[in-house]
Amino acid sequence: MKLNVLTEMEYTAASAGTLILNIHALRTPRQTVISEEFVIDPYIKVEELVSQQSDNRVFRFEIAENSSIKVSYKATIDNYCEVKDYTNLVEIPIAQMDSTILPYLYPSRYCQSDKLYRLANNLFGHIMNPFEKVMNLTGWINKNVQYLSGSTNAQTSAYDTVTQQQGVCRDFAHLGIALCRALTIPARYFTGYAYQLQPADFHACFEAYLGNDWVLFDATGLVPLNGLIKIASGRDAADTAIANIFGNVNFTSMLVSCELAEDGFTPFYYHPTQLRGLTYL
Amino acid sequence: MKLNVLTEMEYTAASAGTLILNIHALRTPRQTVISEEFVIDPYIKVEELVSQQSDNRVFRFEIAENSSIKVSYKATIDNYCEVKDYTNLVEIPIAQMDSTILPYLYPSRYCQSDKLYRLANNLFGHIMNPFEKVMNLTGWINKNVQYLSGSTNAQTSAYDTVTQQQGVCRDFAHLGIALCRALTIPARYFTGYAYQLQPADFHACFEAYLGNDWVLFDATGLVPLNGLIKIASGRDAADTAIANIFGNVNFTSMLVSCELAEDGFTPFYYHPTQLRGLTYL
Amino acid sequence: MKLNVLTEMEYTAASAGTLILNIHALRTPRQTVISEEFVIDPYIKVEELVSQQSDNRVFRFEIAENSSIKVSYKATIDNYCEVKDYTNLVEIPIAQMDSTILPYLYPSRYCQSDKLYRLANNLFGHIMNPFEKVMNLTGWINKNVQYLSGSTNAQTSAYDTVTQQQGVCRDFAHLGIALCRALTIPARYFTGYAYQLQPADFHACFEAYLGNDWVLFDATGLVPLNGLIKIASGRDAADTAIANIFGNVNFTSMLVSCELAEDGFTPFYYHPTQLRGLTYL
Amino acid sequence: MKLNVLTEMEYTAASAGTLILNIHALRTPRQTVISEEFVIDPYIKVEELVSQQSDNRVFRFEIAENSSIKVSYKATIDNYCEVKDYTNLVEIPIAQMDSTILPYLYPSRYCQSDKLYRLANNLFGHIMNPFEKVMNLTGWINKNVQYLSGSTNAQTSAYDTVTQQQGVCRDFAHLGIALCRALTIPARYFTGYAYQLQPADFHACFEAYLGNDWVLFDATGLVPLNGLIKIASGRDAADTAIANIFGNVNFTSMLVSCELAEDGFTPFYYHPTQLRGLTYL
Repeated sequence: MKLNVLTEMEYTAASAGTLILNIHALRTPRQTVISEEFVIDPYIKVEELVSQQSDNRVFRFEIAENSSIKVSYKATIDNYCEVKDYTNLVEIPIAQMDSTILPYLYPSRYCQSDKLYRLANNLFGHIMNPFEKVMNLTGWINKNVQYLSGSTNAQTSAYDTVTQQQGVCRDFAHLGIALCRALTIPARYFTGYAYQLQPADFHACFEAYLGNDWVLFDATGLVPLNGLIKIASGRDAADTAIANIFGNVNFTSMLVSCELAEDGFTPFYYHPTQLRGLTYL
Repeated sequence: MKLNVLTEMEYTAASAGTLILNIHALRTPRQTVISEEFVIDPYIKVEELVSQQSDNRVFRFEIAENSSIKVSYKATIDNYCEVKDYTNLVEIPIAQMDSTILPYLYPSRYCQSDKLYRLANNLFGHIMNPFEKVMNLTGWINKNVQYLSGSTNAQTSAYDTVTQQQGVCRDFAHLGIALCRALTIPARYFTGYAYQLQPADFHACFEAYLGNDWVLFDATGLVPLNGLIKIASGRDAADTAIANIFGNVNFTSMLVSCELAEDGFTPFYYHPTQLRGLTYL
Repeated sequence: MKLNVLTEMEYTAASAGTLILNIHALRTPRQTVISEEFVIDPYIKVEELVSQQSDNRVFRFEIAENSSIKVSYKATIDNYCEVKDYTNLVEIPIAQMDSTILPYLYPSRYCQSDKLYRLANNLFGHIMNPFEKVMNLTGWINKNVQYLSGSTNAQTSAYDTVTQQQGVCRDFAHLGIALCRALTIPARYFTGYAYQLQPADFHACFEAYLGNDWVLFDATGLVPLNGLIKIASGRDAADTAIANIFGNVNFTSMLVSCELAEDGFTPFYYHPTQLRGLTYL
Repeated sequence: MKLNVLTEMEYTAASAGTLILNIHALRTPRQTVISEEFVIDPYIKVEELVSQQSDNRVFRFEIAENSSIKVSYKATIDNYCEVKDYTNLVEIPIAQMDSTILPYLYPSRYCQSDKLYRLANNLFGHIMNPFEKVMNLTGWINKNVQYLSGSTNAQTSAYDTVTQQQGVCRDFAHLGIALCRALTIPARYFTGYAYQLQPADFHACFEAYLGNDWVLFDATGLVPLNGLIKIASGRDAADTAIANIFGNVNFTSMLVSCELAEDGFTPFYYHPTQLRGLTYL
């Protein structure tokens, strides 16, 4: 499905600083960047950084003291996600798992899976099919955690959310990841653009490694999963911040949009009694 | 300097399981593995895993239900560390830092640098030379945190240690890393063998990225820095666990040793008034 | 029911210090101290402190530098607890609650009820009868939290236990209290002697304020509730520590026992489908 | 010094509820309530609650479903605080401390002194005079913690503030209390009206028990200490909330003021090199 995405952000620098932005759509076998345009006004030279661990595309540039800039990113993306049936999912033993997958089993800044073993196993340990496990934990988060703008901050982690049961998409994703890892299911953070997200913003959800696929899950249930455009994945939000800012530089405004670029979109949501999931690379 | 290192560990498996061991000395331009031997008794087939992000060498194998094994690793290693003067250290701007270094600026499971900005800057922000900054924070940890075996556990993080001021080498390292990152100095966890560590055990310390070097710091002050043999580096202990165990497998005994394999060792410790550091790649 | 209780504790003082012990059985309308004997060997003058907020009886004395003492407390207690039916429990509105009860609604050191509102209400908010609410939350703790000696320490709180789901009687009690308060049910910590506790030790559980009664609940399920002898109640363990030690004084050994002093004991445990509770003043 | 204080608060109730307000000036030997008026509009019957543990005066009333009220409290208070010299302060041994003081040595919800022993002793343990100790720790908080409106919330505790080093008056007070208790100095939370506080609001600071006095300390340094009118004291903010609200009742507006009612006010602030403190009962 073709989608048009757009980000406009303004920054004002009191001191000279460096920005690392993570807003470009990812290029993967399942997601084609048909066209894109990235402009900083006034012009600043930008460097694209290649990540060793992932295909994430981040852009770094310097901003001068006492200056203001407007960054805009506009792209048309084609997204070939796939709905698969996981009824007969065969679990991959740790002993056969690719070594690049293993780091997604370990705890990270916002996903302290090491503290959630008993809880995760008490709640979901009895479920045999790993896809069903993740469906169930996603449903549990959706049911118990209240989506509440402004209720959490950049330091809130899965350990907070599992008890305080309030948060935004980022917190829902972190908790989903932490519960997966506590169940020995590799999981990673997904940040992207989301068609039909209200109000428009960047979105976060997560991917669990099931069979040989990274399967997408979104505990917020806010958007159709096939309307997502991936920006980056990582261990958690610490790896995939939209912007890393060094210096006294302030973000002053932001506009995000994600719209269909062609007809024929059929929204896909998970169905609690069907073991069908969406893989997205 | 040539050193002989040895690890012997015994495991008993109640259920079938998978172990991933991280006890092999790293092969780097500054550390040569002259000879090594890795034996599991009784024999189990072992797979060496290559990490994408690092040169860490981890070994994975399966252990059968109701079995006991003895793992032994024996090696002779040559360690070409270098003492450098950082008096005129030129700080590398974020804008010029290699993209592989950037992840070591971000918070991780045990190093919540995002919570320590004010504290780190209040204590060390006034120091200009970055080497001196890290020397000072290392000295502050050494002075304020009490080395106390058994006082912490696998969930203890830098956020705990900065206040509770007790811990073991792992906690000293995590706090050092978190303070560095809070000061916008990339830092990573170092795990290795340590000559003259009493009682003998694996050791942990950390590396800060200064100039274009990873420079070694050890806030415990327990061992000469030039007697270390590196096993692995990573964001923190979550990346570099000695053993990751999947299944009901219990560790029953361990022996570690690290001894000189040649004469002429002159212990090198940092001197508080000299800006000389040890780089170890 | 008459019970004989006994405590013997030994302390060694490296420096002069002060001890405040909280091991005497409480004197209440429902618990008679038939006889008791409190001896410190060698003799030290002891002062009984009266608490303003409670009937707790604590004993304070000074211990000399470089000395060792043996404290023993022996008593015969009669315990008139009462089993009541709470099927038709009428909830007391906050507006009519005695002002001495209100502090037991507020969060305390180990019972951070303010962080558990959503969780408590998601789990138990739908239950109408407040006795049944507390029965259910006690059952939930018993089912989900693993009793594991040594798994927690003096800093562990309800906020830890609700997620990590392991602990000892103190942790079970703190979590019960925190969940009650989050449901606007006053609750307090109970420390005492417990008949049939294996291994013999002091015990902790909690009381919820239901109707006009403080009703006893024990999420551990380890002992019959009518075999308890109350030492103290308070907001949580911070109020009711067995010993508060000031100075470099170390506890070296302890012996606790609680035995029947008459025949005819019928153990009383709560039954999940009966709304019968035990009040104990 | 005579001061006029005023509070106006508006509440809207979606459901029926109960409010417990803690806004009346305390009546003590050192603080006389010359006149006061407490009005709820429209009229609601109010009950004054007497605290067992303190002289705090709290007022409880019920609010009807779908109603809005305006509460106003207006009073003229005379405040006989006393400046004393603590140069020759004799510390009171725990063994001689009144039993009503002891609870202020123990950790509480927001003042986890049990986690701060090493830190407090590393920073302030070497200071002999207890008044000087508290002066120093107050100065340390003032220097290191940034006063930043909105940076913390109702769950923030001293354990957070000691590391994150930002907060409001409540956080400054909690940290002061926690450090005192960690140094075996009893300390309690003080909430009141404050002359010259900008912007006008309720204020929080703390009292340390030194000699036989409760001595006032304010780590924020925002107001002259002799312009304070005490509302309540307690272990921490959990004991002394301005309002405890039960039911779906929302606070919609607030106005607070505190003005001189007579001439001749000489602002008193602590002087870092003088051991003179203000006691306020």
